[in-house]
Amino acid sequence: MKFFEDIRVGETAEIGRHTFTADEIKAFAARFDPQPFHLDEAAAARSQFGRLCASGWHTACMWMRLVIEHRRREDAERRARGEPVATLGVSPGFRDLRWPNPVYPGDTISYATEVIEMRPSSSRPDWGIVTARNTGANQRGEPVLSFISSAFVERSQKQRDPSP
Amino acid sequence: MKFFEDIRVGETAEIGRHTFTADEIKAFAARFDPQPFHLDEAAAARSQFGRLCASGWHTACMWMRLVIEHRRREDAERRARGEPVATLGVSPGFRDLRWPNPVYPGDTISYATEVIEMRPSSSRPDWGIVTARNTGANQRGEPVLSFISSAFVERSQKQRDPSP
Repeated sequence: MKFFEDIRVGETAEIGRHTFTADEIKAFAARFDPQPFHLDEAAAARSQFGRLCASGWHTACMWMRLVIEHRRREDAERRARGEPVATLGVSPGFRDLRWPNPVYPGDTISYATEVIEMRPSSSRPDWGIVTARNTGANQRGEPVLSFISSAFVERSQKQRDPSP
Repeated sequence: MKFFEDIRVGETAEIGRHTFTADEIKAFAARFDPQPFHLDEAAAARSQFGRLCASGWHTACMWMRLVIEHRRREDAERRARGEPVATLGVSPGFRDLRWPNPVYPGDTISYATEVIEMRPSSSRPDWGIVTARNTGANQRGEPVLSFISSAFVERSQKQRDPSP
């Protein structure tokens, strides 16, 4: 992870990609979203989706997984170059999540992120808050996921109490 | 599922509850959110959380699971009373997701929902859009999850084209 001071609004990154299989779509749905169109091809054929498709939560959770792997690669590269690695703090949450198109078995989703806002944290002076637009698109370029996330990111220049 | 016309703003429902175990917290994290504080007690003890805690996505996915089970019970009750069952449509997405407190092993999270807005769909006249505030709280009443969801819900009185 880069430090807050090294991040710029407008920065984009390819997070990674994942191909969803029918088996994993069904396994996720059985555990967390047991609706017929996520569980069974025949039932899905009779649904509004017309065929088996992934739970939107599955599409979102895979974003999280790829973000962690992306950060690990980034951190390893920074360490290899002898650069310090910033700590990523908790996420205060996110907003405006959309699933504009279904994810079908065999679809490969490419996830990307763009920094859209940055501000110092008023309550935690050693941290900044980075807001990003996160997206997923299938192999035809159709959007399947979008949401805005915020996260605390460590500052390289630690803030000191102002002189009295 | 009730029909759009039978739902009222301000309606609340207890969706269900779930006790998170260390094993399932780690299994979810290994698959979707492999950060040390979700995977390993010793690493979590050194983290900002101080102990193992669930991925926020896990807390949210368990909401989804309990919502489906809640609707199934509701539909079975309606059928037992001889009442028709409405179709729940796709979700256009949600907004303002917050994880105000961590979920630790052994915590029992109670999920609830409150209808906060209703409107007919302008693009799909046989459907209405129901917006709800969804929450999760632990056994001490501390909030651990909140977000606003919207979903298409079937209308009982099908809309016809207005007379010319």
